[in-house]
Amino acid sequence: MLQFELLNTDSASHARRGQLTLNHGVVQTPIFMPVGTYGTVKGVMPRSLHDMGAQIILGNTFHLWMRPGLDIMQSFGGLHAFEKWDKPILTDSGGFQVWSLGAMRKITEEGVTFASPVNGDKLFMSPEVSMQIQTILNSDIVMQLDECTPYETKGHLTTEREARTSMEMSLRWAVRSKNEFERLQNPNALFGIVQGGMYLNLREESLQQLVEMDFPGYAIGGVSVGEPKEEMLGIMAHTPHRLPAHKPRYLMGVGTPEDLVEGVACGVDMFDCVMPTRNARNGTLFTRYGDLKIRNARHKTDHQPLDTSCTCYACAGSSGVSWDQGGRDGFSRAYLHHLDRCGEMLSPMLTTVHNLHYYLNLMREVREALDAGQFSAFRARFKAERARGV
Amino acid sequence: MLQFELLNTDSASHARRGQLTLNHGVVQTPIFMPVGTYGTVKGVMPRSLHDMGAQIILGNTFHLWMRPGLDIMQSFGGLHAFEKWDKPILTDSGGFQVWSLGAMRKITEEGVTFASPVNGDKLFMSPEVSMQIQTILNSDIVMQLDECTPYETKGHLTTEREARTSMEMSLRWAVRSKNEFERLQNPNALFGIVQGGMYLNLREESLQQLVEMDFPGYAIGGVSVGEPKEEMLGIMAHTPHRLPAHKPRYLMGVGTPEDLVEGVACGVDMFDCVMPTRNARNGTLFTRYGDLKIRNARHKTDHQPLDTSCTCYACAGSSGVSWDQGGRDGFSRAYLHHLDRCGEMLSPMLTTVHNLHYYLNLMREVREALDAGQFSAFRARFKAERARGV
Ligand SMILES: [Zn+2]
Ligand SMILES: [Zn+2]
Repeated sequence: MLQFELLNTDSASHARRGQLTLNHGVVQTPIFMPVGTYGTVKGVMPRSLHDMGAQIILGNTFHLWMRPGLDIMQSFGGLHAFEKWDKPILTDSGGFQVWSLGAMRKITEEGVTFASPVNGDKLFMSPEVSMQIQTILNSDIVMQLDECTPYETKGHLTTEREARTSMEMSLRWAVRSKNEFERLQNPNALFGIVQGGMYLNLREESLQQLVEMDFPGYAIGGVSVGEPKEEMLGIMAHTPHRLPAHKPRYLMGVGTPEDLVEGVACGVDMFDCVMPTRNARNGTLFTRYGDLKIRNARHKTDHQPLDTSCTCYACAGSSGVSWDQGGRDGFSRAYLHHLDRCGEMLSPMLTTVHNLHYYLNLMREVREALDAGQFSAFRARFKAERARGV
Repeated sequence: MLQFELLNTDSASHARRGQLTLNHGVVQTPIFMPVGTYGTVKGVMPRSLHDMGAQIILGNTFHLWMRPGLDIMQSFGGLHAFEKWDKPILTDSGGFQVWSLGAMRKITEEGVTFASPVNGDKLFMSPEVSMQIQTILNSDIVMQLDECTPYETKGHLTTEREARTSMEMSLRWAVRSKNEFERLQNPNALFGIVQGGMYLNLREESLQQLVEMDFPGYAIGGVSVGEPKEEMLGIMAHTPHRLPAHKPRYLMGVGTPEDLVEGVACGVDMFDCVMPTRNARNGTLFTRYGDLKIRNARHKTDHQPLDTSCTCYACAGSSGVSWDQGGRDGFSRAYLHHLDRCGEMLSPMLTTVHNLHYYLNLMREVREALDAGQFSAFRARFKAERARGV
């Protein structure tokens, strides 16, 4: 099940405000989706995800297939009960991870043969297998198996011919994914993925053919694969608004806070990225006024929280009142610097809460600006504030 | 400030139910105190400590002196504001850590000279220095500096003469600690520490002289220093009930759930131990029906929570309804086994919550049994249940 309601659109950009109804609940868009590779968003309890307003999270089909394996997932009736998350889940197809195995895998028209990185077993991934696994996972949004066209192929930039070959196979895999998804009577929603590498004409072709197949939603894949930022921005400006207006659009694997706001302006509804969680573990924190490296010695004596405007548990404690509003219940930069220096687990726990909250709150502010018809003003203020420096 | 009210005593043992009022709040005894060495109970948010009913936690004077250092602690007005814990805190004296530096330190009557393990600086610890640091930390309960009499000295069991020399110096350090504590006008409560190694006559002497000094509370130190379990149990049976009945008694560094229940029967009011947090990180979980090793393959497919009677977040989720009461919101053993296998941070986060909750809940059940005059029955049932096997 998938219903997408377009609530309103921005007059000055392609930005839109929507509402997506899935089997496990309603998602307000634009939305950021935290990544939970192995059935856990790294370092966060499901309870904290709820508290910070997460509406939908990701799971990785390939990883969950390897560990814990399909017998376990089946015994739980899917990923929701296993990881105790009762709101919507989106799973990727597993294609990107299989593709990333490099020399360990062999891609043919039929599918991908590879050796299990867990126990060396010879395994096979195909559009049909991906649909079968995602049906067992019972994710609300299922992704078609695609071939992720690399930015570079064998040391040279992927040629148009190489990109076309790859894109066309992904289209055939889209057909097979859809057929298998229907044969399995999967009650969730299958998304098609636009490919075409860095060639906009190929992207256009991919998009047109996928639209004809009438998927309930579409993703833009093959970005964040090592290309220069301008290339990614070029695709972001090209593809999303060309997709059907009455269907949700998901830009895969992107990106920084700036990327998200620009992505919304380009007509994207859904984002996912490991950046907030991974950066948190490395001590790089996103704030309203720019990024902050907690390992920097200048934070050693600072009583302020990471972000004085933030209401997350790390910045505002249990009261949820930000420092700027007079709250003093949050954890100081001095304390977080100390925890990091001592290698204490509470450091990535608190910084992960903050970074995810930052991303989720940013999308909340985007939605509010769209609701109020003030997205342009918001976008300008966002850029100015982020550039101010923390 | 310290007020201790003895609410009732068990007729069949030395067990007692008490209430301890400190500057940052009231503590119901008997109590277990989670250990927060570096200003954080490893792997737990202060919010979770509140939720699981922690009433008082520990901080380590030596560690906090090294990192973040006294200037930082002073700028926060003490440990409470730094680590955002507004209930009582007990700090140790730092003596045990200095003593553990081995060849790195030199003990004289005046104090201990040692090289900082952080930067190699030559440092000096004495009863006066310990009091000065703990005054800056502003902990509710301050411990005297003592010399921790080792179980073995230079490869032989510590002789009575050696133990006496050590115990007598600790008594002189008790006097100096008390004098300095008073000179500093520290508004909190200073505990004396009974020493004497494994020699009960020395313990008796130490105890008598400390009682004459009229501390507001007493600890039994020098246990959990490598001695056989029977030696520890011997001291636990000997010393606590000989201490003044109207003052709180703290058995340092002990122990297993069985040790705690026996300790209560011997008249102990307060316990601390790293076992619940450390074992959680190693995948050893305490449950009502015995200990459980989550890495064991037999848990791989098990839908039950760690402890079917437990109401912690790990076992009962946000609803707090245990599996035995029909709740199904907790995380399964299968999921925790999977998280551990994948090295996911959520594994020690959830297991730490469970183990600490187990210890805190055990003490709650002890208090309820004492309130109801049924401690003997509780003690028997506890032993039988723990022996049942999980
Ligand atoms: Zn924050
Ligand atoms: Zn539990």
